[in-house]
Amino acid sequence: MVKNPEHRAWQVLSSEYLGNQPWFTVRKERVQLPTGVVVPEWYIFEFPRWVQVIAITKDEKFVMISQYRHGLGATNYELVAGVCEENEDIEQAARRELLEESGYGGGEWREFMHACPNPTNHNNIAYTFLAVGVEQVSEQNTEPSEDIDVHLLSREEVRYLLDNNMIIHGLHSAPLWRWFAENR
Amino acid sequence: MVKNPEHRAWQVLSSEYLGNQPWFTVRKERVQLPTGVVVPEWYIFEFPRWVQVIAITKDEKFVMISQYRHGLGATNYELVAGVCEENEDIEQAARRELLEESGYGGGEWREFMHACPNPTNHNNIAYTFLAVGVEQVSEQNTEPSEDIDVHLLSREEVRYLLDNNMIIHGLHSAPLWRWFAENR
Repeated sequence: MVKNPEHRAWQVLSSEYLGNQPWFTVRKERVQLPTGVVVPEWYIFEFPRWVQVIAITKDEKFVMISQYRHGLGATNYELVAGVCEENEDIEQAARRELLEESGYGGGEWREFMHACPNPTNHNNIAYTFLAVGVEQVSEQNTEPSEDIDVHLLSREEVRYLLDNNMIIHGLHSAPLWRWFAENR
Repeated sequence: MVKNPEHRAWQVLSSEYLGNQPWFTVRKERVQLPTGVVVPEWYIFEFPRWVQVIAITKDEKFVMISQYRHGLGATNYELVAGVCEENEDIEQAARRELLEESGYGGGEWREFMHACPNPTNHNNIAYTFLAVGVEQVSEQNTEPSEDIDVHLLSREEVRYLLDNNMIIHGLHSAPLWRWFAENR
């Protein structure tokens, strides 16, 4: 229905890594636009694929979490989310994260949407799954650096949080707003 | 209606800047969780406030743009967006960006939503404005590093792009999905 926009890629004149470890793999590049303009320093933050889950229980509660987030210095409601390992299937990664962070599993799963955190300077995609009819199947089993509370929220409570910008993570509010646009 | 989640902030044990320039201001911190666990390296990417605009003309066309994005290496449809200068009002910054990137202005403006690109490792907020009844008031006036096409898309075309994950920028799809959740 809508055509793809014209793609005028930049040419990489030089490229160096400033760091190469989890959560800090950064390339600095000198680039040239098709217009001829040279940008001497462009920074690209490399991350693996991320996965996220809108998980809804059989009695229609959304399985949400909260945790302190040191970038923003704030604690807000979020979706269960995590990193997909290099050779891991994205749905398996999403199921694993839901189980680890909340203890919930089962249900009917489908890929729901995907988004890039910021195509300007990120190279990765966050894949969101919709899991309907999940139930608690184990205890939470998080990593030592994770300190996560689980919340079962009604549809009205999730909508209230969205309406009031209380789900501050843009990669999480995007699929939740999509869910509300599609489910009235 | 929903309580704020419990806030268990981390303690910063040490902090150093790895870089301090536009688009690469990065802090590396050694932190301690309230649980006692020490995380030796946490990276925080600092950015200024960002602004974005859902701009709709008098004849109900969405003013969208497209540009090559070197992080993802892709060209997709996007909202007009940019950086708010340090002492600039966010609405003025959004009006300035709309004028520079598209040549559109005027209309009725209101703050529509805000989101953080990623509270894990970003310290900033992107503020989205809804501008209704805009019209072309000048030519596009972009910076040398910007190579931007302007597109006037119908509501149905924007929804098609969202439905098919063709607005890949999560900070842009979030407010657009909100608009569709609120306008049926």
